Amino acid sequence: MKADILITDTLLLPDPGSKTLIRDACVAIGANRITYAGPMTGCAEIEAEKVIDGHGRLAMPGLVNLHGHAPMTLFRGLADDLELTDWLNNHIFPAEARAVNPEMAYWCSSLAAAEMIASGTTLAADGYFHEHDVARAFEDAGLRAVAAQGIIDFPAPGVPDPGKNIEAAAAFIKTRQLHDSLVRPALFAHSPYTCSNTTLQRAKQLANATGVQLYIHVAETEHEYSLINEPLGPSPIKHLQGLGILDENTICVHCVWTDQEDLQIIAGQGSPVVLCPQSHLKLASGMADLPRMLEMGIRVGLGTDGCASNNSLDMFREMDICAKIQKLHRLDPVAVPATEVLKLATVNGAAISGFPGLTATLAPGSPADLILIDLQQPHLQPFYNGDLLVYAASGADVRTVIIDGRIVMEEGKLLTIDLDEVLQQVRSLATA
Amino acid sequence: MKADILITDTLLLPDPGSKTLIRDACVAIGANRITYAGPMTGCAEIEAEKVIDGHGRLAMPGLVNLHGHAPMTLFRGLADDLELTDWLNNHIFPAEARAVNPEMAYWCSSLAAAEMIASGTTLAADGYFHEHDVARAFEDAGLRAVAAQGIIDFPAPGVPDPGKNIEAAAAFIKTRQLHDSLVRPALFAHSPYTCSNTTLQRAKQLANATGVQLYIHVAETEHEYSLINEPLGPSPIKHLQGLGILDENTICVHCVWTDQEDLQIIAGQGSPVVLCPQSHLKLASGMADLPRMLEMGIRVGLGTDGCASNNSLDMFREMDICAKIQKLHRLDPVAVPATEVLKLATVNGAAISGFPGLTATLAPGSPADLILIDLQQPHLQPFYNGDLLVYAASGADVRTVIIDGRIVMEEGKLLTIDLDEVLQQVRSLATA
Repeated sequence: MKADILITDTLLLPDPGSKTLIRDACVAIGANRITYAGPMTGCAEIEAEKVIDGHGRLAMPGLVNLHGHAPMTLFRGLADDLELTDWLNNHIFPAEARAVNPEMAYWCSSLAAAEMIASGTTLAADGYFHEHDVARAFEDAGLRAVAAQGIIDFPAPGVPDPGKNIEAAAAFIKTRQLHDSLVRPALFAHSPYTCSNTTLQRAKQLANATGVQLYIHVAETEHEYSLINEPLGPSPIKHLQGLGILDENTICVHCVWTDQEDLQIIAGQGSPVVLCPQSHLKLASGMADLPRMLEMGIRVGLGTDGCASNNSLDMFREMDICAKIQKLHRLDPVAVPATEVLKLATVNGAAISGFPGLTATLAPGSPADLILIDLQQPHLQPFYNGDLLVYAASGADVRTVIIDGRIVMEEGKLLTIDLDEVLQQVRSLATA
Repeated sequence: MKADILITDTLLLPDPGSKTLIRDACVAIGANRITYAGPMTGCAEIEAEKVIDGHGRLAMPGLVNLHGHAPMTLFRGLADDLELTDWLNNHIFPAEARAVNPEMAYWCSSLAAAEMIASGTTLAADGYFHEHDVARAFEDAGLRAVAAQGIIDFPAPGVPDPGKNIEAAAAFIKTRQLHDSLVRPALFAHSPYTCSNTTLQRAKQLANATGVQLYIHVAETEHEYSLINEPLGPSPIKHLQGLGILDENTICVHCVWTDQEDLQIIAGQGSPVVLCPQSHLKLASGMADLPRMLEMGIRVGLGTDGCASNNSLDMFREMDICAKIQKLHRLDPVAVPATEVLKLATVNGAAISGFPGLTATLAPGSPADLILIDLQQPHLQPFYNGDLLVYAASGADVRTVIIDGRIVMEEGKLLTIDLDEVLQQVRSLATA
């Protein structure tokens, strides 16, 4: 048997949703897919072009970051610890108006891609403007991604006339659907309080007509809830339901301000939910009721949000806080155990992303998106089980990253991104 | 002018409690102390034996971890996501009874020291049993520390007869006070629900007689509150106050279940408080009211707690969660800004530790405890200000660590600890 890549003598977590670890294991990759993942005895006959020594490492599926705004790396740490309206109106919106252009979108998304790959993310869903340039950056980095063009009823970067926001999004989808790449296009309606009913319905029609997903910020803050609640309907979720927007291809990001009826609607429509726990904490949005969502069978994934409101794109950090905050919220140390959080950030994320055949497991036949973690470090020993991936690991422990069978980072070195150039470009934008 | 160590061409955060950054700066160290920290122009005349290139780095004071149980690294991840009584009675207590001995305490504390130094902690306060061996491990690692011998009214590691717990602690203090080292002895009374009134008062008398600090877990859980509230007094804090235990040399660890009267008592007595936010979340203990404590002028520091209940000793992680959780709790994004949290983990921690002259600033004359952070990484660019130290950095970003003027880690390599041997010893203990 032949393979393109063979990882030998490693500790294996083949399915992050289960606690099963396989010691003295190997992983074989051929034609972009996992061909074998199991005990070393099973790979004695495999000859590979590239052999990676996995000793002292853990091999596991890569992480899935289901929500971000990649160009906003430029605004990381620019304005922290502020009231939401002060933050938006006096800092973020002016900075966006001044700084966002196609070149900026490309370089700052390259920085985001570098950060995500370096910290073990192999699939990212993004929503912003100049999304074609975001998609180019992700393509160049070899990152699997969903790139969603923003739709908002205000002048936006690259879309100065909001009357043409659907048209611009349609052009984006059309152009991107010509590319055969790891980056799939989608739409990102900003929110029910920044998009009119007509805009939301037209966005959904465009999504349906082109067969792409529609992402939307919804039920994020109490302020949004009050804006919707008064003139439009009982709640942001019920408002979207009334417009006929919710189905399994509409991904509801945040869902903090949801009641039992809202969650029943989401569950009934099969809409996936994406939580961004760090953003919910840092902006003081509130607590999403993750345990109840899971009890109700809602499909939940995790995202970091843009790094103006986090300020990190490290999904390990996101998992840790996600697990811990739910325990406090319920005053129950058993709530949302580590394995459940690992599943949200891998298996669930992959399923929600809509990539055909993507499982975020190392089952034979799955697309080869995986990472190697260095366990030979003080904070990861002893390593009794995978719980430490949530409660002690960080993105910095990731050494090697493979996406779609291609090594994009090896032993800490990014192979697809010229990091020095990216850092220089972003620094010059930051000081402009 | 001569110096032992000169760090050149660096970005400088001389006082973590202030936002001031100095670009193109240098730091000089002589006779274990900072002799200069400021613009490069001020060090043109300095000749040093050792020059460290600080380009692309941030130099700042090291972090202070005010609460831990170093030997418990052996139980890291052994039992997560469990009810507190299940966790203690069925997992942690049996594991301690089986595994804890002087040799284990030494090796597992060496692992803790390695983890803390590698993640930028230059001063740790510890409380456990076989604390003499913990102190030896810290001494060998060159870590500045407070090592507090445990006192509890149950059979404990090394103290099988609880009737001799004060005696054993007195012997520990006497022995350790003969050492001239960076590790100072102290006492650690386990809690008001595991120590009788007599034991607590004798522990405080011993602390007073020997001039050491008394650390105590207090007001950690609702369960403890109910145990104290019924037979003993209105609250754990009022109970300790009634026993005459509280003063500026009694360090109250946790203080989650405290009301306004409790906090007034703590403020009035001048007792420092140590919060362990990650432990409070993971064990679902509850939320300490940090903003109110600060408003009332209470001296607050941060600790990681033992890594059976966290599971990391990374103080960067602790700072991040500390800042974010308070914003959620108050639904106020302005609550406890990053600079305030940095101050808790440095300046406040140093002052509470009781080390003479220790300021956790880089002011000339201060003991030279400092760290260098690698800013040339995707997640730390752009670097507009020190907020990213809380919201994006992790312990893995620390490259070089200097404690008391001695380089204990250089470019990621631990110089005082044989990490391979420590990992091997701990692994063999973990699989025993």
